Amino acid sequence: MSRYLSKRYTSLEAYVPGEQPSDMKYIKLNTNESPFPPSPGVLSAICEEEVKNLRLYPNPDGIKLINKLAKLYEVKPKNIIIANGSDELLAFAFLAFFDDGVVFPDITYGFYPVYAELYGISYRQIPLSEDLTVNINDYIGISKNVVLANPNAPTGIVLGLDDIEKIAAGNPDHVVLIDEAYIDFGGKSAIELTHKYDNLLVIHTYSKSRSLAGARLAYAIASEAIIEDLGKMKYSFNPYNVGRLTQVLGAAALDDEAYFIEKRKEIIAVREHTEERLRELGFTMTSSCANFIFARHHGISGAELYSGLKEKGILVRHWNKSRISDYVRITVGTGEQMDILIAAITELL
Amino acid sequence: MSRYLSKRYTSLEAYVPGEQPSDMKYIKLNTNESPFPPSPGVLSAICEEEVKNLRLYPNPDGIKLINKLAKLYEVKPKNIIIANGSDELLAFAFLAFFDDGVVFPDITYGFYPVYAELYGISYRQIPLSEDLTVNINDYIGISKNVVLANPNAPTGIVLGLDDIEKIAAGNPDHVVLIDEAYIDFGGKSAIELTHKYDNLLVIHTYSKSRSLAGARLAYAIASEAIIEDLGKMKYSFNPYNVGRLTQVLGAAALDDEAYFIEKRKEIIAVREHTEERLRELGFTMTSSCANFIFARHHGISGAELYSGLKEKGILVRHWNKSRISDYVRITVGTGEQMDILIAAITELL
Repeated sequence: MSRYLSKRYTSLEAYVPGEQPSDMKYIKLNTNESPFPPSPGVLSAICEEEVKNLRLYPNPDGIKLINKLAKLYEVKPKNIIIANGSDELLAFAFLAFFDDGVVFPDITYGFYPVYAELYGISYRQIPLSEDLTVNINDYIGISKNVVLANPNAPTGIVLGLDDIEKIAAGNPDHVVLIDEAYIDFGGKSAIELTHKYDNLLVIHTYSKSRSLAGARLAYAIASEAIIEDLGKMKYSFNPYNVGRLTQVLGAAALDDEAYFIEKRKEIIAVREHTEERLRELGFTMTSSCANFIFARHHGISGAELYSGLKEKGILVRHWNKSRISDYVRITVGTGEQMDILIAAITELL
Repeated sequence: MSRYLSKRYTSLEAYVPGEQPSDMKYIKLNTNESPFPPSPGVLSAICEEEVKNLRLYPNPDGIKLINKLAKLYEVKPKNIIIANGSDELLAFAFLAFFDDGVVFPDITYGFYPVYAELYGISYRQIPLSEDLTVNINDYIGISKNVVLANPNAPTGIVLGLDDIEKIAAGNPDHVVLIDEAYIDFGGKSAIELTHKYDNLLVIHTYSKSRSLAGARLAYAIASEAIIEDLGKMKYSFNPYNVGRLTQVLGAAALDDEAYFIEKRKEIIAVREHTEERLRELGFTMTSSCANFIFARHHGISGAELYSGLKEKGILVRHWNKSRISDYVRITVGTGEQMDILIAAITELL
């Protein structure tokens, strides 16, 4: 820390992303990336002309991409904004809307409290129920800004649209932000509710189901006024926040809906099969609708499982945090990767 | 504006980037992009394997790229941080270091006051001298955080290293940020002074001299402690802020120093030749060490010149702002583009 850093940040604890050790080649099941490459259309989208044009700034609004997204989700282009990953959109939302505080579950995406600390926003973490589900009554009529990951992370548990609607309707004077990073793996998106609720803000990412974590792309869908406000944040921070190639890749990914659906289906099937095998080994797990499994075993601690697997060349994620320290979060990889995982776990038990 | 937006932002005026009209094909001399494509090495840097790997998150620290930059600038990797364009780095710096206010010239990059407004930071704009130069005595011993674009924009006027050193030495308890977006076109970088002054923060971009505005890449060089603080901002905002392909392209661009030097030389030569021809037409201009020319003519207003050129298919930049409304800023393009520009201006006069 330098002596110039704002005193506000002396105790700020930044987010810690999943590790990327380079001492050996690992099977990487720790950051919920897709095991599949982007669609063939994405692979051929970057021509020499596009790279030559990198001398030019991107279109700051990403109009071509936004028009495609608007068509896909049956909203207007003015209901969408793109950004450099959903982390950036989340940060913009915290800065724009949460002056009078925000609530989110005690167990959820670990970045939410970091944004609050970064911008000096007060927050309350509402405990999940004993079974790690969200009790929606905790969020209705509380007159607070709400952030919910749906499916939640790292539990994978999803809320139905009726519940999301109750929360949006139950806090009409505050923003209800639904972070749908994992929605494509089993939930139903709240995007259709944005037509009805002007306080509902839905965020999607290309990093999981679209196999483009490395391209950095996400979008938010909400009422025109909310999107305009997020645009004000973007244009006051970094107007050219999404690069030219990323915009091209993002548009190409939407052109191959068949590939998207097929790979999503495959991940869901592998998840279910892996859950079955883990159950046979004595694991219990949350009911995941995401591309990861959140599992624990009475015979081995989460920390031991994490480090035992790492020694065997498999990375999973573990949090040394109350209520979930028994668990590990395992990204759903290919069938082959899951075979290796199950064999490694069997050895460790 | 939604009714949910923080009241702090009711009067926030976002930055307005250079226009990108799509009604016809323009010669684009309004955002200081390079007229040349990135180096041949950049064009061949993206192989299929790289695109397939987009399923994976980038290395958040950009280690390979940072190692190359460290070698080039003779600093340690810990003295460098990369980001999604210099606008993002500027925003991080404002947030991290400028709690007790900041000063910058009244005529400079228009984004500085926007960051201050965004984060509620007080700022004072110090008038440039009558001839639009920075009077360095205004910045010495003032016990304030300082931001200077060097060369300044939109004037292109450069300060020497001795002056930068006096300002850094003259405000030892505050950060002196030197925004060197245009330094490669005629100035001397203050990077070497960062070894001596732990309050000096230098920001470079790939958007101008490296022909990669569309890839979004920039870096800051400073003391380890300052870089650590900027890292804290990054990891509390968007750890994966620089995409995989951008990191690859950024490294490839550094591998072809000969191309970089040649194109830079060409731009400087075209700038000088264009200045000569504008002088012959009766223009006066600031002494630019950047890839743009800041020019005015007693016979035509800046606004008329801007709109007259736009009608003829040439975009330049004009600000309806006191002290500089007589001027237009013209990006240095290719020799052919400048021929067309000179012909168009001759017609307008």
